Amino acid sequence: MEIFHSPKELKDFLKDKNKTIGFVPTMGALHDGHISLFKKARSENEIVVASVFLNPTQFGENEDLDKYPRNDERDIRIARICEVDALFMPKPEEIYDKNEPLIKAPEKLATILEGKTRPGHFDGVLRVLNKLFNIVKPTKAYFGKKDTQQLAIVENMVRTFFMDIEIVPCDIIRESDGLAISSRNAYLSEEDKLYALKISQSLAKAGAMIKKGELSTNSIKTQMLSILEPLEIDYVAITNRRFEPLDKIELDNTFILVAANVGQTRLIDNLWV
Amino acid sequence: MEIFHSPKELKDFLKDKNKTIGFVPTMGALHDGHISLFKKARSENEIVVASVFLNPTQFGENEDLDKYPRNDERDIRIARICEVDALFMPKPEEIYDKNEPLIKAPEKLATILEGKTRPGHFDGVLRVLNKLFNIVKPTKAYFGKKDTQQLAIVENMVRTFFMDIEIVPCDIIRESDGLAISSRNAYLSEEDKLYALKISQSLAKAGAMIKKGELSTNSIKTQMLSILEPLEIDYVAITNRRFEPLDKIELDNTFILVAANVGQTRLIDNLWV
Repeated sequence: MEIFHSPKELKDFLKDKNKTIGFVPTMGALHDGHISLFKKARSENEIVVASVFLNPTQFGENEDLDKYPRNDERDIRIARICEVDALFMPKPEEIYDKNEPLIKAPEKLATILEGKTRPGHFDGVLRVLNKLFNIVKPTKAYFGKKDTQQLAIVENMVRTFFMDIEIVPCDIIRESDGLAISSRNAYLSEEDKLYALKISQSLAKAGAMIKKGELSTNSIKTQMLSILEPLEIDYVAITNRRFEPLDKIELDNTFILVAANVGQTRLIDNLWV
Repeated sequence: MEIFHSPKELKDFLKDKNKTIGFVPTMGALHDGHISLFKKARSENEIVVASVFLNPTQFGENEDLDKYPRNDERDIRIARICEVDALFMPKPEEIYDKNEPLIKAPEKLATILEGKTRPGHFDGVLRVLNKLFNIVKPTKAYFGKKDTQQLAIVENMVRTFFMDIEIVPCDIIRESDGLAISSRNAYLSEEDKLYALKISQSLAKAGAMIKKGELSTNSIKTQMLSILEPLEIDYVAITNRRFEPLDKIELDNTFILVAANVGQTRLIDNLWV
């Protein structure tokens, strides 16, 4: 595995290779979720590129950029074990310029749910991904379904910017108890974790209700809210795949999305129905 | 020459060609300025792609989008004579989506001079060029120095977005009397044209003064303003190549920029010193 710090070095490495490139962009603090993306990328491409870049522009002023877990050495070890070919670890000043165009994520998708609580978050996500995509020019790029709204907004950018990249949605990886794996789980105490479990439990309940034929989103939400208690809930949303609220579950066209705070930690999870 | 209307068709045509591509983006109403870009692109590349797309997003609400000269048949004839290989003539709905990310041109460069009088103009320019560059993936793209500020803002985007495109600045083409050629010259009556000449004359005077050793930008501006009278002047600016105002001319690092209205027609011109 080769490690690159500057965009130019990585570009030179990839230049004229004429091979399929699988790309996994990450913010580091790699976990089993990332590993599943690396494996999928490895199985589908000739070259696998991963980035570890804690992107400052996607954090709000009062968010957790400063305390976000970092462990470059461990990340390098994991990427190497996963047979990543090129690991890109730039500093922010190698990615951003004092004067550069900004990207505004599409309003309809980016100002609801995550975007409502985290204004500007998706602008920062697209700002960095547009650059990373141009640097890496991947054939396929791998994203977890855990960030479903991000996935949709990235797909929108790739399509409307006419980029030749296939965005590959990858299943959520969970602890054995159901907790969706996230770098932010590192913030949770053992007690917090018990509370955090309520999130995946509420989604499992929703899934079970739908399996039994319940289609009323109101009934499902009521059940979910009672399971989620006493968490501080940001949203429980049941929408179609365009993030428009639904009264009735539409099979193969529904997202059930939860965001809640466990102590100081904001967690998200979802279920595709 | 092949003509394409949809991005996909053009992409398919260019796919796997593995040849150098010279790209000339235009808004149509082709004139000798464009022809000089086509010729340069033709001499430096294996494939030449031109676009004719009257981009609505770079026009302000009170600007001249509706009356901007259009003549597709003539444009096609000219492109063919200039040995363009692929002419791209999309409709706006093939370029733009209802929900898509917006691009905000870098504030420092885009809110002065043209950007001050035409707020949002450069956002629209970058919005379309980012797409066109992704569709065409040119080796080189050709832009006239007449739109010097646009040239700088496009260069900034290409560099900070990590696009592999060389932006080639091309000399201003003038009528024999000195008037810089522009599609908007079509709006000028014969009398207007006599007034419009004052713009290039003021720049010629500035050039002559500098040749004689005058370096005070104040003295030069005073002379220019007296030549420009009675035009309604938007700006006469003497800046370095980062568009910062200068007290003294810096050789090989100065732009002298003029924008003025002749009747209802806004004209721009400049001199690189």
